[in-house]
Amino acid sequence: MGCLDDGRFAVEIENGVSVGRGEVGLGNEGGGVIEDAVKVLLEGLGEDVNREGLRKTPLRVAKALREGTKGYRQKVKDIVQGALFPEAGLENRVGHAGGAGGLVIVRDLDLFSYCESCLLPFQVKCHVGYVPSGERVVGLSKLSRVADVFAKRLQEPQRLADEVCSALHQGIKPAGVAIILQCTHIHFPDIESVFLDTKHQGWMKVLVSSGSGVFENKTAGVWADFFSLLKFRGINMDKIHFRGPSDPCWCPSQSSLSSKVSSKFGPVNPVMITAVASIIESLGEDPLREELIGTPSRFVKWLMNFQNSNFDMKLNGFLCGGSVNEEVNFNNKKISSELNIPFWSQCEHHLLPFHGVVHIGYLMSDGFNPIGKSLLQSIVHFYGFKLQVQERLTRQIAETISPLLGGDVIVVVEASHTCMISRGIEKFGSSTATIAVLGRFSTDPTARASFLQSIPSPTSSGEQ
Amino acid sequence: MGCLDDGRFAVEIENGVSVGRGEVGLGNEGGGVIEDAVKVLLEGLGEDVNREGLRKTPLRVAKALREGTKGYRQKVKDIVQGALFPEAGLENRVGHAGGAGGLVIVRDLDLFSYCESCLLPFQVKCHVGYVPSGERVVGLSKLSRVADVFAKRLQEPQRLADEVCSALHQGIKPAGVAIILQCTHIHFPDIESVFLDTKHQGWMKVLVSSGSGVFENKTAGVWADFFSLLKFRGINMDKIHFRGPSDPCWCPSQSSLSSKVSSKFGPVNPVMITAVASIIESLGEDPLREELIGTPSRFVKWLMNFQNSNFDMKLNGFLCGGSVNEEVNFNNKKISSELNIPFWSQCEHHLLPFHGVVHIGYLMSDGFNPIGKSLLQSIVHFYGFKLQVQERLTRQIAETISPLLGGDVIVVVEASHTCMISRGIEKFGSSTATIAVLGRFSTDPTARASFLQSIPSPTSSGEQ
Repeated sequence: MGCLDDGRFAVEIENGVSVGRGEVGLGNEGGGVIEDAVKVLLEGLGEDVNREGLRKTPLRVAKALREGTKGYRQKVKDIVQGALFPEAGLENRVGHAGGAGGLVIVRDLDLFSYCESCLLPFQVKCHVGYVPSGERVVGLSKLSRVADVFAKRLQEPQRLADEVCSALHQGIKPAGVAIILQCTHIHFPDIESVFLDTKHQGWMKVLVSSGSGVFENKTAGVWADFFSLLKFRGINMDKIHFRGPSDPCWCPSQSSLSSKVSSKFGPVNPVMITAVASIIESLGEDPLREELIGTPSRFVKWLMNFQNSNFDMKLNGFLCGGSVNEEVNFNNKKISSELNIPFWSQCEHHLLPFHGVVHIGYLMSDGFNPIGKSLLQSIVHFYGFKLQVQERLTRQIAETISPLLGGDVIVVVEASHTCMISRGIEKFGSSTATIAVLGRFSTDPTARASFLQSIPSPTSSGEQ
Repeated sequence: MGCLDDGRFAVEIENGVSVGRGEVGLGNEGGGVIEDAVKVLLEGLGEDVNREGLRKTPLRVAKALREGTKGYRQKVKDIVQGALFPEAGLENRVGHAGGAGGLVIVRDLDLFSYCESCLLPFQVKCHVGYVPSGERVVGLSKLSRVADVFAKRLQEPQRLADEVCSALHQGIKPAGVAIILQCTHIHFPDIESVFLDTKHQGWMKVLVSSGSGVFENKTAGVWADFFSLLKFRGINMDKIHFRGPSDPCWCPSQSSLSSKVSSKFGPVNPVMITAVASIIESLGEDPLREELIGTPSRFVKWLMNFQNSNFDMKLNGFLCGGSVNEEVNFNNKKISSELNIPFWSQCEHHLLPFHGVVHIGYLMSDGFNPIGKSLLQSIVHFYGFKLQVQERLTRQIAETISPLLGGDVIVVVEASHTCMISRGIEKFGSSTATIAVLGRFSTDPTARASFLQSIPSPTSSGEQ
């Protein structure tokens, strides 16, 4: 897969935008094409591509995309070759114990992949099993490496599972291969629907499996063995079903809520769509493949959430007293706080989302709470839906709320960054916290400590 | 660090073994030197270097070591350069909120490093914080990349923390940098002491910190902020202390138990020691550096645990009835089981340890338990202390216990492999399970299920 037909062709994707193959050959690294396309996207967002934070963004995005889709340029044969080792089978073996013994399982492999429907990375916890045959076993790390070849492409969970399963079956020639993937996709609301959808969950999750050989039958006893050794991982055998072509796409960009809300930005910019299609093509994919046809316009539509808009936030109309979640007595004043206010934002260095929660604390005389949670949520969204860095987001929230809340404020932002789990970094489970302090909170460690200790738990927003 | 002086020199390490600089220049990739040295080590273990599982082991070890110590060839300046971004500070800032806001923390970065005392990889959970200054912030991923430069060397936890702290301070020029490392080192018993030391723990853990600028004072309020945002990670501020030169080395290879037991293999082979010293030198390290002087002999002494010995295990003397942990009624018979028998072994593909637990189940008529846990433990250790692969270990245990236990046996081995967390793979938290079944367990899925469900929890042997 991922191979384009030979020869030149012209592509007409939806919205009537024409994409010529141009001078981008298959052998071309495609870096230049992606960089040019990213510049078009940044300009479409109303950004100055020469501002310092963005100057190298096209280069960074191109590098990340090339690295993140290197599976198109890898061959399973090269990986497995030389890593098949002879191992005698059990002496008086019966059943499928044809290799060293019976089932071999490698659990909890953290991978990431790119969603073919919206181009955002998604996380994969991968569990691989196989039953050796022909008295040979494969080096354990190869199971991870082969899975990664198919993860580092534009994917959909079921196809990813099927492709890994099939490649391992052909490469190892075992009695059977079993794959279980726990996939987690960031669930990004539109700026327009985020206020309506207050119970919004940050992640879309899906569980898929694929089996070959002795695992082809979903009710085979060997599947039960596999599941027994995966227990306590939140995997329920009954919840897994084969996702067929008729199942709805898992990607939140295709969910009803997102698609129903019409964009206030009007029709999607065709130049930006063409730019995204050229990125897909330069990665070695066919923009005409059925699943990819709507991808450029979905990506652009999502990206436009972070448009550099100039409208001022009108705070006056919002000012109204509201309930406060937490109060901590502190000398003559009270530390009031609003904890776990959700936010979504977009890293301007990599054009990748980061999201998490904001905790806000402020010192108030007893009984005086001038501000409601809904206003704080509005302020957080206002600064979130931009090309951002977390440090700036934290400062901007602090500076905006400070005059409204008496000047003694502390803002803590906890986030998981997609740019930390994808690209060359792949630091799954890492999270970033930033603090901004003004007034009394900047000079009084005891005030800070009182507030920080009231935060109930580090919101493990990066967790599956 | 890691730079050798110019010019040639001759080294005399302990045991009087002489190591000439030879033809290995600093610019040399050192692959050939390491491969030759690994062949010497395999021969010293009594192995046939041409046997299929070992044929490419020298190549694999060389590749892994070059990859795992690439930090010697990386410059922090190259990483940080171009990733410092201007960010305005808080408008009415006071105290140390000189950058965007205040403290920036990246938590839970999984790294691995190599212990300079024994050459085995150890795991690091790294938490990095800094307070911006000069109105500029650094790209978040650079904190991880810089930490990795120093992790990918021969290290000791406190020096690793200090070097990362100092490099970030010089690279970012912030108001201060804070580093906390949770380090986990495999604790590998000698084959001779493993029976005496029944409460043996699989991991040695140490917690270190390092601070610069506003973090230089350990009692500064900003440390309290840092710890508040690390809570629930099992980190106790009071348990951290600066490890000075007078503190005992954390490496288990220098612990009293290991060093007191004299090796039954006699004096350590000087040719093998020379080989290890040549590996250290070819990585770009000075084998004469104080902390490295005893490393070759410690590594060889440890490696000799896996000598290919020809002595037969005498089972007859061990045969005695013993108590059985668990019993599950199964038709007319009972499934007896011994769960969580610890084992240690050495991956023959990478010369890296793997360890975990063995679960053994067997079908017996009521009341007939011919074998004790201590014999099962002996059998497990016998097959563990070799150059191994987990699949073979599982089969060998099953074949050995089968005639002793009536023929209906199931063996499950759960292990975490150092070769899966180090090298290019770095799949932290992954674990491998293998199953071997004989007799009734190979034909009856219900019998397997009954046993597998009795395993209390997947022993997360890879966890910190």
